[in-house]
Amino acid sequence: MYVIGERINGMFKNVRSAIEEGDKRVVQELALAQIDAGANALDINVGPAKGDVLGSINWLIDTVREVTDITLSIDNPKWAIQQEVIPRLGSGAIINSCKADPEALDKYMALAVEHGAGLVALTIDKQGVPADVDKRVELGALIGAKAMEAGLPMDRLYIDPIILPVNVAPKQPQNVLATLQQLKMLSDPPPHLNLGLSNLSQNCNHRPLINRTYLIMALAAGLDAAILDPFDKDLMDAIITTELLMEKTIYCDSFLDAQRLQI
Amino acid sequence: MYVIGERINGMFKNVRSAIEEGDKRVVQELALAQIDAGANALDINVGPAKGDVLGSINWLIDTVREVTDITLSIDNPKWAIQQEVIPRLGSGAIINSCKADPEALDKYMALAVEHGAGLVALTIDKQGVPADVDKRVELGALIGAKAMEAGLPMDRLYIDPIILPVNVAPKQPQNVLATLQQLKMLSDPPPHLNLGLSNLSQNCNHRPLINRTYLIMALAAGLDAAILDPFDKDLMDAIITTELLMEKTIYCDSFLDAQRLQI
Repeated sequence: MYVIGERINGMFKNVRSAIEEGDKRVVQELALAQIDAGANALDINVGPAKGDVLGSINWLIDTVREVTDITLSIDNPKWAIQQEVIPRLGSGAIINSCKADPEALDKYMALAVEHGAGLVALTIDKQGVPADVDKRVELGALIGAKAMEAGLPMDRLYIDPIILPVNVAPKQPQNVLATLQQLKMLSDPPPHLNLGLSNLSQNCNHRPLINRTYLIMALAAGLDAAILDPFDKDLMDAIITTELLMEKTIYCDSFLDAQRLQI
Repeated sequence: MYVIGERINGMFKNVRSAIEEGDKRVVQELALAQIDAGANALDINVGPAKGDVLGSINWLIDTVREVTDITLSIDNPKWAIQQEVIPRLGSGAIINSCKADPEALDKYMALAVEHGAGLVALTIDKQGVPADVDKRVELGALIGAKAMEAGLPMDRLYIDPIILPVNVAPKQPQNVLATLQQLKMLSDPPPHLNLGLSNLSQNCNHRPLINRTYLIMALAAGLDAAILDPFDKDLMDAIITTELLMEKTIYCDSFLDAQRLQI
């Protein structure tokens, strides 16, 4: 699967301090350690920071780019930010994210196509996150159709059916699984299917257990990308083992070690 | 889910010794501890024992019955054994198991119906374990049809699509998941769908991880019963968490502890 490391996020205290103090070391260590732990891309999120958001994002990007050219997922809902940042990152970026609104999709997809970037598109419209499977699938199909229209290849499109916290939205984990099963048949090749995994267990106890258990179910349903914590070794081992059981890899006695090196 | 505890099995050295030496304490402790850990039924298997198999099974049954009246899964392929044992256990037993051969099904189902017992029926015929999904589903459908004919209620039928070790049969975990998804739509209410989980990881490294990961996938696909090791706490926690995420239970901060008491 495609692992987008979630740890460079201003929500975390050490990252927030690093941004405020211009401490590159913290951010660069987080970047390299996530790659070492198996991340295929790194999420860049300034978090709830006030002030010069664009300046903070640019600082995070430049800081990370000093140590790695890995793909960066620019995690910010503002069009003005994406418009500034994506042209200079080009194919080394994933826009994260836009909603399934026809006008927004046209605009964001044109930006992704022009600069060779990827795009995370959420199955959320002006009414918010759909409560049922059908609406999520409908919005996913709209996203897929818009991508074809815009010429965005499916391997650069990440449809995200949005997982909500299980403690406040108990039906949604099942709805998202059913949505994944349907969206993976949207086209051939299919788009990537992505989740921001940690949102599932916001304000819950036993967060790693909840996240890990659901990721296994979601991978079996068709998920192939997620924003998650690659430092969670049990989570990464669960991914490796799920892929073994889905015959994406073949068993050998050292399958865990072998895949940890390759993930 | 319906947990059938696997630990009273002559394959385990302590159980084999207990049978040979008539040491009731070992067997009774295993029975009570498995129930305490969440087992809904106990598998009774003499293992590869030679000599008086019927005598050994009867001793195990009598020994367990001194301490609990929980349902016993009589795990033996011989008709002569089941014919002797089931009449005295009646509705407190599950026959484990018969193959999906029309004549065998008629015979075993008549025994189950007559005495109020349950029946595990394997999707395996004279050609052995099917390599593909279609044949497994076909045999599952035969089992379901025979149960209706015989008057065996679906809640006493356990169809087992047979999981083979992932190291020798790498396509089978996926085939079994696809089979489960189809068999759960066989009837309304559906039959129970069962697996002998530990077989998946025979001679593998990281057995608990492989078993636990697959059980989560299988529960999401429709499994609702398994013969497994209830002493594996991580496995039992995975079951509880999967059921939470399938909305079979509702989140509370102490959901693990709460369900451990009820499982």
